[in-house]
Amino acid sequence: MLIVMKQDATPEQIAGVVEIITAMGYEARPMPGRQRTTVGLVGNDGRVDASRVEAMGGVAEVIHVTKPYKQVSREWKSEPTRVPLPDGTSIGGRDVVVMAGPCSVESEAGIMAAAHAVKAAGATVLRGGAFKPRSSPYSFQGLGKVGLEYLAQARAATGLLIVTEAMDAYGLELVSEFADIVQVGARNMQNYSLLKECGRQRKPVLLKRGLSATIPELLLSAEYILSEGNPNVILCERGIRSFDSTTRNVFDLSAIAVAHGLSHLPIVADPSHATGHRDMVPAMARAAIAAGADGLLVEVHPNPERALSDGAQSMYPEQFERMMREVSAIAEVIDRRVAIAGGSAT
Amino acid sequence: MLIVMKQDATPEQIAGVVEIITAMGYEARPMPGRQRTTVGLVGNDGRVDASRVEAMGGVAEVIHVTKPYKQVSREWKSEPTRVPLPDGTSIGGRDVVVMAGPCSVESEAGIMAAAHAVKAAGATVLRGGAFKPRSSPYSFQGLGKVGLEYLAQARAATGLLIVTEAMDAYGLELVSEFADIVQVGARNMQNYSLLKECGRQRKPVLLKRGLSATIPELLLSAEYILSEGNPNVILCERGIRSFDSTTRNVFDLSAIAVAHGLSHLPIVADPSHATGHRDMVPAMARAAIAAGADGLLVEVHPNPERALSDGAQSMYPEQFERMMREVSAIAEVIDRRVAIAGGSAT
Amino acid sequence: MLIVMKQDATPEQIAGVVEIITAMGYEARPMPGRQRTTVGLVGNDGRVDASRVEAMGGVAEVIHVTKPYKQVSREWKSEPTRVPLPDGTSIGGRDVVVMAGPCSVESEAGIMAAAHAVKAAGATVLRGGAFKPRSSPYSFQGLGKVGLEYLAQARAATGLLIVTEAMDAYGLELVSEFADIVQVGARNMQNYSLLKECGRQRKPVLLKRGLSATIPELLLSAEYILSEGNPNVILCERGIRSFDSTTRNVFDLSAIAVAHGLSHLPIVADPSHATGHRDMVPAMARAAIAAGADGLLVEVHPNPERALSDGAQSMYPEQFERMMREVSAIAEVIDRRVAIAGGSAT
Amino acid sequence: MLIVMKQDATPEQIAGVVEIITAMGYEARPMPGRQRTTVGLVGNDGRVDASRVEAMGGVAEVIHVTKPYKQVSREWKSEPTRVPLPDGTSIGGRDVVVMAGPCSVESEAGIMAAAHAVKAAGATVLRGGAFKPRSSPYSFQGLGKVGLEYLAQARAATGLLIVTEAMDAYGLELVSEFADIVQVGARNMQNYSLLKECGRQRKPVLLKRGLSATIPELLLSAEYILSEGNPNVILCERGIRSFDSTTRNVFDLSAIAVAHGLSHLPIVADPSHATGHRDMVPAMARAAIAAGADGLLVEVHPNPERALSDGAQSMYPEQFERMMREVSAIAEVIDRRVAIAGGSAT
Repeated sequence: MLIVMKQDATPEQIAGVVEIITAMGYEARPMPGRQRTTVGLVGNDGRVDASRVEAMGGVAEVIHVTKPYKQVSREWKSEPTRVPLPDGTSIGGRDVVVMAGPCSVESEAGIMAAAHAVKAAGATVLRGGAFKPRSSPYSFQGLGKVGLEYLAQARAATGLLIVTEAMDAYGLELVSEFADIVQVGARNMQNYSLLKECGRQRKPVLLKRGLSATIPELLLSAEYILSEGNPNVILCERGIRSFDSTTRNVFDLSAIAVAHGLSHLPIVADPSHATGHRDMVPAMARAAIAAGADGLLVEVHPNPERALSDGAQSMYPEQFERMMREVSAIAEVIDRRVAIAGGSAT
Repeated sequence: MLIVMKQDATPEQIAGVVEIITAMGYEARPMPGRQRTTVGLVGNDGRVDASRVEAMGGVAEVIHVTKPYKQVSREWKSEPTRVPLPDGTSIGGRDVVVMAGPCSVESEAGIMAAAHAVKAAGATVLRGGAFKPRSSPYSFQGLGKVGLEYLAQARAATGLLIVTEAMDAYGLELVSEFADIVQVGARNMQNYSLLKECGRQRKPVLLKRGLSATIPELLLSAEYILSEGNPNVILCERGIRSFDSTTRNVFDLSAIAVAHGLSHLPIVADPSHATGHRDMVPAMARAAIAAGADGLLVEVHPNPERALSDGAQSMYPEQFERMMREVSAIAEVIDRRVAIAGGSAT
Repeated sequence: MLIVMKQDATPEQIAGVVEIITAMGYEARPMPGRQRTTVGLVGNDGRVDASRVEAMGGVAEVIHVTKPYKQVSREWKSEPTRVPLPDGTSIGGRDVVVMAGPCSVESEAGIMAAAHAVKAAGATVLRGGAFKPRSSPYSFQGLGKVGLEYLAQARAATGLLIVTEAMDAYGLELVSEFADIVQVGARNMQNYSLLKECGRQRKPVLLKRGLSATIPELLLSAEYILSEGNPNVILCERGIRSFDSTTRNVFDLSAIAVAHGLSHLPIVADPSHATGHRDMVPAMARAAIAAGADGLLVEVHPNPERALSDGAQSMYPEQFERMMREVSAIAEVIDRRVAIAGGSAT
Repeated sequence: MLIVMKQDATPEQIAGVVEIITAMGYEARPMPGRQRTTVGLVGNDGRVDASRVEAMGGVAEVIHVTKPYKQVSREWKSEPTRVPLPDGTSIGGRDVVVMAGPCSVESEAGIMAAAHAVKAAGATVLRGGAFKPRSSPYSFQGLGKVGLEYLAQARAATGLLIVTEAMDAYGLELVSEFADIVQVGARNMQNYSLLKECGRQRKPVLLKRGLSATIPELLLSAEYILSEGNPNVILCERGIRSFDSTTRNVFDLSAIAVAHGLSHLPIVADPSHATGHRDMVPAMARAAIAAGADGLLVEVHPNPERALSDGAQSMYPEQFERMMREVSAIAEVIDRRVAIAGGSAT
């Protein structure tokens, strides 16, 4: 950490900053420059609270050099993390894992039809919400435990793995029992109570980026999970909030390169929530894979006009099939391949 | 709801939209125009899922006329809600209620000193966190139940009321037992499990706006609380995320006028989190009152350089005193007054 | 246009709105609904000034149905515009046109070396600024007319076409004389005086999206050029401003699909400015082509560490070569091809 | 400037950075730390192009300590700049200068009526556009020179000063001849050709903040004007673009405190453009003055429903009168006063 003093800072003000740093248990190293003095804080272990010095007299600015996250960082572990899945594939290596299915589990027949359709097109993981976070209390809130049971039946019938969302401690216990991957939604990215619980259970966690979260904040949320003992976190870019209302969100594909640069964790992309419109999903899915995403999370519904939620962004099965063919070809251009149940690409 | 068709939409596509609307149980009213047809959906009860028609063939755009929130809206209840507090004051009338104190409860002596200081300057509510949501798992996370006990002691000693944050169902039960007002933090604005629990307990709820939440989204979150039976919700503007990093957030004061226009609920302002720097807090507190805020939530610490969190945005007691004098004078210009324990202004 | 009245709007207020619409020369059609009246404005020719009715008594909201742009819209002209270039290629058809070169023209030898390098790797257009818009008055401002002459020499030596920026009427006259494509920079996207001048000269115009411009605003700026008689406008996505400072901008790739949906104009992508870092450019260039961009604008410098501007985002020639191979392969996946001088792909 | 190296940066990579800094003519000072080396650049005169080192091998991050602006900074000149006006008042001292009038000059009678109305309520400067930047080429573009002549007549009749916008070099010459203050609009904040011309003429310049400009960028644009020799720049906050569409823009009132902290230049506020709705203007005008603004720019129209532009945000004369009374009272609370023609407050 570097404390930049104002040009007219007095020697007493500089001494005051040094004193506080020392009182916090770190070493202070004043560096007089041509125009102003800066004070370096040496020995930062990531726990320094910059806030104490930020508004002190004579301080112009506090600059952070050390990153606040640790275990998730590339400097802590340089090898990419490969999150192993029960079907022999893994997320974070050469495999590009495709997770597809409806927004919500709506009925037994519905999820079964969706499962067969996405499997036929080449997906290896089935998505579908049993607990749904909805902006309005009057919207469909999901089938709850029954939804999880339907998902388990679809898994039994198709061999697909299951990813589904948990919204609180109660739901997590259930989801963790039924699912292969536990999803934490964008709105809960900073629900620290939930993150800690996710760190204490053993299933891999798919952590969605919050609507206006920076990548460092996403990594700090992942750090909550790792710091409780669960190393298997999959990040997910799903669009960020912006000023332009012509799409639902802005799909931030450079986040993939940024996350891969700062962290060893894998990152997948969700073009359905990012765009909000099924006709834009195939192009954005192609772009995500071209950009280096480790997988995709997409919405597919056998009959989108009848969907109880997110119908507009759910692809028709035919759209999804064509998307899979294009995505496979693009993955090969950059020496990757769409995952096939039974074993990881090497 | 209004479905705008493309200029070249076919009669079949228009009929398809009409069919889906009818299947959803509403009346569809096609309106041919000079350039294109629009289809009105009549009878919208706020539960219509626009998503079903949004991506249908021939649809250019879906326009929402009916607002998705109900009980929180000005059209549902035209009189402003006055949230009554145990000391005889209320939030939402002529009173301007000032809530002040440290970011976290750090020690018994510390919170007691803070309580006496803010009471001396004219505050009627003491703020202080016992459960702290922190971006990093390695930051100070609050004293928990012990912190709540210290707050209760400070209340007993000074007569101040208590506002403090709950982060999950477990914490809410405790907070609801000790506090006079339960705070839901910005990061939890869309933690629907927590919102529902808040609606089932009886204490007033101070609901902070999420970092990138629109006012309609804030109102929908409040609707979750009202729809469970608790009418006493106080909204809180605390700064939104923007592109400019010269302040911590952008303090969106027009949110106050917007919220007052759309809803009958009171709204207070938190200039401490909005700016992140104590030297900017007094000016922004004045501006918030001039803009019509129903109260203030500010951080004051007897010794900010030693604070365990948010030191930079905590005012010195002297700053707070001067702020209170200015704020009182400004309140009078617009015919309001800073609340005094014992009774509401009329 | 649809004027939504408040639930408690009086008949007089509704009549007032009708009167103003009539006075503006349009037809007003009041539509009483279950909860409120809406008033339709019929005959909107894109010139209606909504502002007159927006704040009238009883008005809740004004909703725009008609888009304000005309000639640039897909509904005005359904065929994609193909902007023809002097080397027989065109932008907007199957061709993917790659424009590459340094940020600024720095010297005769430098631009010549860059031209040979990008041509060898397969680019058909050379970029390079002679007039540079710089945030600081103390930064390098470009070589001016001499820079244009160096560009012309590079064209003569290599057969590459030239794209370069004009910042004002004086510069436009010069640029228009030397260049094959005139660039309007992001900061000038709403410099209407410059846009009108661009519409009055005959060279194709590459119009960059402003840092916080919506797609409809970008299209309105293009409309300024078309409305003065120049149909050859190439839109350019180059990153938008967001809250996250881990990249220079957010590369909004869904803008490509959105622009193609709303307009017949071609759109290219600039991953160099979007990311600000050369190591991210190849991945984002691949993503842009996978998303359907009609071309690329990228920075390449023979010696980026010595560049007078934008060194960090300039690729090494070797990086650019590899990027071109990957981009070509991805273009083929979606049935397009990188342009080759001599003739358009069909 | 501080170059932070990666933990695993090699000695060769560190030497490479030192070499480039030396080649740029500055001193490089490597500082080995516990976890990584940082390299300080000493002697930064504000012209260093960080871009050269940013993407070099082994570099993790480049941190800017020196600000890129100079003459506009508080450290260059600690006394606030007072921009003197011909009527004896000044902007930047105790005076709060109120500039009011219609969006556009529409007719001789109209501007005369507006002038008398705003003067009666206490304004000392008349605003009104003769050249109008409009998003659409089909909207009313202003009366041009005739508009300026009408403004001059209104000045002659009332003694009010004139502020009006220039959009290009041609318009600036005219505006500079007629007006007392030249306005540069938000869309032209980074039109560097125009800024330089503004620096070469002698009238004070009111420089509006761009829709998504940071305060440092606003100050850099002001620096363009000062560096050409004109010290009389008045900054103007007019709302920034955000994700929330419930208001036209977000009025960033903390910008006032931030600008006053970084610069000696005065800053005024425009609540009309910030909110886009007349009913919100009085509250936001009060808030701006409470926050410390040096003046106001507001739209007032004798008959807003008939306005040719911006009718929704134009106040009725009665609203403006009441606003002036409230604003005067609030100015006194913080020891300032609304300007009165004839002499500055002291």
